[in-house]
Amino acid sequence: MTPPAAEERQLHLNAFLMNAGHHDAAWRHPLSTPERATDLAYWRDLVRTAERGRLDSVFLADGLALWGQVRYNALGGFEPLTLLSALAGATEHVGLIATVSTTFNEPFHTARAFASLDHLSGGRAGWNIVTSGTVNEARNFNQDEHLDHALRYRRAAEFVDVATKLWDSWEDDARLVDRERGLYADGEKVRPIDHAGDWFRVQGPLNVPRSPQGYPLLVQAGSSEDGKEFAARYAEAVFTAQQTLADAQAFYGDLKARLAHHGRTPDALLVLPGICPVIGGTEAEAQALLEELTELQVPEYGLAQLSGMVGVDLTGLPLDGPLPQLPEERDINGNRSRFALVAELAQREGLTLRQLIARLGGGRGHRVYAGTPEQIADQLQEWFEQGAADGFNIMPPILPTGLADFVDQVVPILQSRGLFRTEYTGRTLRDHYGLPRPANQFTRVRSAV
Amino acid sequence: MTPPAAEERQLHLNAFLMNAGHHDAAWRHPLSTPERATDLAYWRDLVRTAERGRLDSVFLADGLALWGQVRYNALGGFEPLTLLSALAGATEHVGLIATVSTTFNEPFHTARAFASLDHLSGGRAGWNIVTSGTVNEARNFNQDEHLDHALRYRRAAEFVDVATKLWDSWEDDARLVDRERGLYADGEKVRPIDHAGDWFRVQGPLNVPRSPQGYPLLVQAGSSEDGKEFAARYAEAVFTAQQTLADAQAFYGDLKARLAHHGRTPDALLVLPGICPVIGGTEAEAQALLEELTELQVPEYGLAQLSGMVGVDLTGLPLDGPLPQLPEERDINGNRSRFALVAELAQREGLTLRQLIARLGGGRGHRVYAGTPEQIADQLQEWFEQGAADGFNIMPPILPTGLADFVDQVVPILQSRGLFRTEYTGRTLRDHYGLPRPANQFTRVRSAV
Repeated sequence: MTPPAAEERQLHLNAFLMNAGHHDAAWRHPLSTPERATDLAYWRDLVRTAERGRLDSVFLADGLALWGQVRYNALGGFEPLTLLSALAGATEHVGLIATVSTTFNEPFHTARAFASLDHLSGGRAGWNIVTSGTVNEARNFNQDEHLDHALRYRRAAEFVDVATKLWDSWEDDARLVDRERGLYADGEKVRPIDHAGDWFRVQGPLNVPRSPQGYPLLVQAGSSEDGKEFAARYAEAVFTAQQTLADAQAFYGDLKARLAHHGRTPDALLVLPGICPVIGGTEAEAQALLEELTELQVPEYGLAQLSGMVGVDLTGLPLDGPLPQLPEERDINGNRSRFALVAELAQREGLTLRQLIARLGGGRGHRVYAGTPEQIADQLQEWFEQGAADGFNIMPPILPTGLADFVDQVVPILQSRGLFRTEYTGRTLRDHYGLPRPANQFTRVRSAV
Repeated sequence: MTPPAAEERQLHLNAFLMNAGHHDAAWRHPLSTPERATDLAYWRDLVRTAERGRLDSVFLADGLALWGQVRYNALGGFEPLTLLSALAGATEHVGLIATVSTTFNEPFHTARAFASLDHLSGGRAGWNIVTSGTVNEARNFNQDEHLDHALRYRRAAEFVDVATKLWDSWEDDARLVDRERGLYADGEKVRPIDHAGDWFRVQGPLNVPRSPQGYPLLVQAGSSEDGKEFAARYAEAVFTAQQTLADAQAFYGDLKARLAHHGRTPDALLVLPGICPVIGGTEAEAQALLEELTELQVPEYGLAQLSGMVGVDLTGLPLDGPLPQLPEERDINGNRSRFALVAELAQREGLTLRQLIARLGGGRGHRVYAGTPEQIADQLQEWFEQGAADGFNIMPPILPTGLADFVDQVVPILQSRGLFRTEYTGRTLRDHYGLPRPANQFTRVRSAV
């Protein structure tokens, strides 16, 4: 197989990992191993599979409360930063993206942990920046209610500003280690940041030297109006849930167009829609696997999840009836973009609650596609070439098999089409995504890195 | 070498790791490698050396600000929880103890991270519980001043109470993974904790299942009056700085006597004084190494460190003059036990500032002992057998060589005397220290574990 020419546009692939897989019934399927959810060796195998497929990165979602009903799904497990730190030593190339909320953390802790992970991994850390939008999270942190949507994003913006200042509080060449003169560091190049804003007062400097990537890769995943504005300002990669090519194209165009307002070029941010690929040797086999998973769904769980997404308690409503009247999007104080997606899907296709639960079971609003490896590669290529995606957030319905199948069956097709790398050519996560190492905002004379 | 009989009392050894070593001039010595402070491979080698010596554990101190003057010492580097997570996968036996402050953290985050590390390491996590006592830390967390000493300990106590509730919010057998019935967990065995106290309101449950050890090993290192009371109530191992056998015996006796007030037996808590062993083939060689290190000290750094310890700015005072009049211990709002130790040392031996800086350079108040491996083993045995210690916190003056020397030269002597294990006999950190796995406080019918 000939490697593609360097100038050819390549797609980017991230593996979104989750205990037993992304389908909410994956844990009941004989191919999954939910018993191993808190076994480091299980995750090590998963991440090595991603690395074998030359994927750009792996990614862990997160919440600051036990999500949903643990009675009916494989919930609870590792905290992302500790798990990814453990996986850093077990891998060499693949990027490691952790979700950390800006709502119930402090920028000093978060900036420090990511700088540490970036050193540990030799420059492979990524931060999926989220806000915490559920009352159950607030109640683990001394609050009765969670912050209003717009305030959460204002706090998130200042949080990221403080983090970048802390990462820049050491210049890259601050460490001298001059034994002879007794100078460990140049004191002029390790400076307080003296940040004083609406949400945070942070003196600095950080107690971690500037890391290989300067900043971890900055990732964002909210697609609401606030979320898109935040992404246009800060994010370098965006995970997004889009059900149709048209919707994905509109989102892609919208987000890329917003970058100019922030002095950024369109290639400064990569858009990666999620896809839950249900892979079969034939289309019928893939459909059968998806139906098998649907059969295994626990209706109580699906209904509770759906209630959370639409902000209405649906308990007790007939499963074969329609979704009731929903609130306005502006009155949703949780995940606003997911609300809009579900509301539109239900209306567009006239789905009953049972059908909606089945449709959302595979990817919680992300696109589910069942087909052969060739058909899946065709879908990815179409979205990639039709202005809907720079790459994809791969959400295997069942783990570990769904990831291995994707790596072994779909990736080679993408490689043979010249759409995806056959070897890692860079060292850091930013290298994989083709993104620059950020200059230090406090360095007086900036030089190209 | 015959392994000791099971009933024989054994000492416990913890390796306290620090960038270039514990002597404040270690980084200038040709045997140290401070260039590798942010290199995972360096730490992996250190921890594997500790494991080769069958040590109980390794330990990382921590602060939430850049401590001291980075101009003159190898400061800054990894965050402990991420580093120890990375090291968990690189080791099999040795315990991993991280310092985390209760002052500027939230119990949900801290309990979660330790539960995660305990799962990652197969039950080898330990938590050195500290309070943050410097204004530079406060200023990284929206505060102008740090909390008063007594309030810090009140917050710490409630913090630990919340953490243990969160660790117990899943019963050990909560996970059913019953695919057939569609029951992942027994909903009755994963419960909110609904904590509402003076400092924290936390609903729970934790989003991590109960970990192999139940709780991480609980370690404490403050030796003030507040610190000792806290230790007597919560700690299972105590790191302490003691300069003389008599002081160490008094501390040991005092702490053990306090346990009964909390319904605990004397063997529920292990006392581990720190020792900085300067090892030489002869006593003269050991002394020469210590003098070599003293020669390399940067006086500005030593004076700044000493100023911090005694709560008085000593800048500009003559190095060959005495310590000036100090404040009363009750007016110290930082590390109160370290203040008392330094004040007593200076008075007892009539030291000048220069001599005091030299004496404190090796262990920041911990005992420094230069001698042959045999002499060092004698010292450890004496303290162990004379009611001053259950084990030791080993603080090599220079890393990596000082740890390797201790493991290769001192440990075999202790083993040959039947004082220290020749193989790991347990699996978890609690096993190594001979401490029980805590029962779940919420389990209705408790059974022996």
